[in-house]
Amino acid sequence: MAEKKITTRQEDYNQWYLDVIEAADLAEHSPVKGCMVIKPYGYAIWEMMQKVLDAKFKARDVENAYFPLFVPKSFLEKEEGHAEGFAKECAIVTHHRLKADPKNPGKLIADPEARLDEELVVRPTSETIMYATFKNWIHSYRDLPLLINQWANVVRWEMRTRLFLRTTEFLWQEGHTVHSTGEEADAFARTMLNEYVSFAQDWLAVPVVPGQKTESEKFAGAHTTYCVEAMMQDGKALQFGTSHFLGQNFAKAFDVKFTDDKNEMQFGWQTSWGVSTRMIGGLIMTHSDDKGMVIPPMIAPIQVVVIPLWFKPEQKDEVLGAAEELAEKLLAAGIRVKTDKRELRPGEKIFSWEKKGVPVRIELGPKDLAAGTGVVARRDGGEKVSVALSDMEAQIPELLVKIQKALFDKANAMRETRTVSANTWAEFTAAIEAGNFVLAHWDGDPETEKQIKTESGATIRCLPFNQPNEEGTCVKSGKPSSRRVLFAASY
Amino acid sequence: MAEKKITTRQEDYNQWYLDVIEAADLAEHSPVKGCMVIKPYGYAIWEMMQKVLDAKFKARDVENAYFPLFVPKSFLEKEEGHAEGFAKECAIVTHHRLKADPKNPGKLIADPEARLDEELVVRPTSETIMYATFKNWIHSYRDLPLLINQWANVVRWEMRTRLFLRTTEFLWQEGHTVHSTGEEADAFARTMLNEYVSFAQDWLAVPVVPGQKTESEKFAGAHTTYCVEAMMQDGKALQFGTSHFLGQNFAKAFDVKFTDDKNEMQFGWQTSWGVSTRMIGGLIMTHSDDKGMVIPPMIAPIQVVVIPLWFKPEQKDEVLGAAEELAEKLLAAGIRVKTDKRELRPGEKIFSWEKKGVPVRIELGPKDLAAGTGVVARRDGGEKVSVALSDMEAQIPELLVKIQKALFDKANAMRETRTVSANTWAEFTAAIEAGNFVLAHWDGDPETEKQIKTESGATIRCLPFNQPNEEGTCVKSGKPSSRRVLFAASY
Repeated sequence: MAEKKITTRQEDYNQWYLDVIEAADLAEHSPVKGCMVIKPYGYAIWEMMQKVLDAKFKARDVENAYFPLFVPKSFLEKEEGHAEGFAKECAIVTHHRLKADPKNPGKLIADPEARLDEELVVRPTSETIMYATFKNWIHSYRDLPLLINQWANVVRWEMRTRLFLRTTEFLWQEGHTVHSTGEEADAFARTMLNEYVSFAQDWLAVPVVPGQKTESEKFAGAHTTYCVEAMMQDGKALQFGTSHFLGQNFAKAFDVKFTDDKNEMQFGWQTSWGVSTRMIGGLIMTHSDDKGMVIPPMIAPIQVVVIPLWFKPEQKDEVLGAAEELAEKLLAAGIRVKTDKRELRPGEKIFSWEKKGVPVRIELGPKDLAAGTGVVARRDGGEKVSVALSDMEAQIPELLVKIQKALFDKANAMRETRTVSANTWAEFTAAIEAGNFVLAHWDGDPETEKQIKTESGATIRCLPFNQPNEEGTCVKSGKPSSRRVLFAASY
Repeated sequence: MAEKKITTRQEDYNQWYLDVIEAADLAEHSPVKGCMVIKPYGYAIWEMMQKVLDAKFKARDVENAYFPLFVPKSFLEKEEGHAEGFAKECAIVTHHRLKADPKNPGKLIADPEARLDEELVVRPTSETIMYATFKNWIHSYRDLPLLINQWANVVRWEMRTRLFLRTTEFLWQEGHTVHSTGEEADAFARTMLNEYVSFAQDWLAVPVVPGQKTESEKFAGAHTTYCVEAMMQDGKALQFGTSHFLGQNFAKAFDVKFTDDKNEMQFGWQTSWGVSTRMIGGLIMTHSDDKGMVIPPMIAPIQVVVIPLWFKPEQKDEVLGAAEELAEKLLAAGIRVKTDKRELRPGEKIFSWEKKGVPVRIELGPKDLAAGTGVVARRDGGEKVSVALSDMEAQIPELLVKIQKALFDKANAMRETRTVSANTWAEFTAAIEAGNFVLAHWDGDPETEKQIKTESGATIRCLPFNQPNEEGTCVKSGKPSSRRVLFAASY
């Protein structure tokens, strides 16, 4: 089969994104509308993400558990803001049995006699079902903090889907904690946000802006929503993760109470926080190029691929043997390495790993072997250098560190260049139009926020933590403002 | 609160099982009928199981992927046997939106305008949705074998549930492979069954009988079902895992085809195989006793708990320091160790770990410290010996190996004692009644099998692989038989 060419970013950014996913064999649309199939290579990236995050959570004494997929409809009704946020995008289970369709032989219908007394919602998130359980786990302040995480699938019905970024079903982790004071809960929500910041930056090489959501952008039912926002190569923002300080809203709705050290009954203070397979979309759009996927070494399922190249059958044994020997050495040095032994033309082999974004390729042909060297090619910049086989164990780990840093620096430089201040409405719309993150004054009024969104397409991504106080006037209303906030078009 | 006493096995075996789960804090019923909450300690056991099995699968080149939670109803209709097997126990999604109930302020109803054109079934297993996708992944024999595994939740509607053993939603892994020949596929199905055997025996210390299911007990849509069966302490069988050779049944229903090396189109030969959170139930019922859970060291989330005991406040610092020092040493020796620093009475501490089945407790009190020793207590036998602190690093790993073996041997001895042969119907019913595995002749007729089940409650657990050919007559019909099969009452 002829290889399909990857559309360039210049030609069509959205098609480029889909082409990269297809070329790297990460995921595809499933026969179920809005749901994706995560293919082995895409899933391997998710497994890497899970492993790193899971260790981070456990280091903070968070324990994993598992709660039901289904949420009784009445649970969703209990926290009003929450219900409004999720009711419109739920998969609803109404029956528990199929039966043969009496009118169509071979076909099945939902058995009318197996209608549920109360409909079940496939969890869009688990606050309600978890907290209805937590209330029985907590009696006294000695039971707190309760720190629980769940790795699970969730469903939010989407009309317009996009692989990884927006799908009806997605995979995520959701942390849920209960604390005895609001200060402790709020601090924990921020701590977990910081874990997301360091995961994005140190592991995925994705620079992010941490901050707080506005009232209209916050999570349904939260007191405060914190978030990390990343810039994609088209200048749009992608929300990478969120962490919510829930106050006592859900505790009151679900009766999550404890007796404090003065023997008085108090409602618990809660947090929830999550990241999802959406991060894979963000990873793709941060680093990849017109040749395909680029994966930072720290998160790459395969960090180095050793490619034995032979042109005549009699050369095969020698290069294959040398390739396997080299791979063994790199494996012993702690590197995730693969040897490509396939019977393919050299160009095809190289091209296939380029598309998959493996950070380093080592090509070993008969001439290289004769010289005692291998050709080391960087996926990110494309440079190729000849390296002595005896130096590989020492040089390759250093090179991986270098690539990781280079990818972060490149993404960070882009974000810095494309983060601009705007002081007038004309400046603002022009800057958004040009695909920038825009720091601008806003009067704090949700109505103004809505108007800005309607007229420019940009939303307030966050009130960045590191943004200094500064007097000014709102770019839209001209009313006074004490701080710039971050606007951008977003995914 | 007063601790609830664990019902003894003698008094009420079923209640004992539930009490052990509660005392060890493994799981509980959720507010959603038939669904359970897996609590942190129970989930930690599942994580241990996942880790070991996942490595086994990967070592056989099986790759993980993820497929949709939902299966279109029409997919279930395609393989007739499969549909019959699962249609009666499905959760069916019919709507994708809730809306405010116009008649009841604050209440929600399924929005009649958001009815799905085609109902979706929450996956009871993923053959249909996966194979509808596999058909696009496979073109030539060079694409085979395709070896995929998925860790996922599945839903099979259950009217009578039992924690871990039978729940409407459960967690599992499902492997699905496609091969170019029937021989290769059948061999792979047996290979994966062997992995389950070694996992059960070497890791869980659960002796199992591998064999083949009869036609009436096989998986809906399979050509052959292989299984591993374990004996619980009440003499009942628990199916630990199954591996199916699917033949070309699903390949024909879902058009999974490839061109062979003679350039001819062929249908693929498939397998599927799975184990679930049900294994946790089997683990509990194999080893636990009237004091609570007993976990084999190889699979125990905590292998050793170090318990500093102090009787006066001024003793605390010293014993705590010594306990932490010892725990550090054991950790360095590769042991999963925890130090119990809680402010509880000594008896309470000891009792709590006993209930949780931690294989080894090391108690460190002021007198022990003065003597340079600690008291090492085995959970399985209850023996306590004093061991020099300086010997712990050397002795504890050996003790863990010993405990693992002792648990297997004990379970195996029970199974051997309670596996009997029966040659007449009277012998057969008496042996089943007494809670045995019964090896008996059967005429091979599904009608006889059904009659035996109705009259004795026993089913054919499997045609054991290691059962020699032997001429005889069916215990029920008196007709000729060439081999004994394994009967038992089962979970």
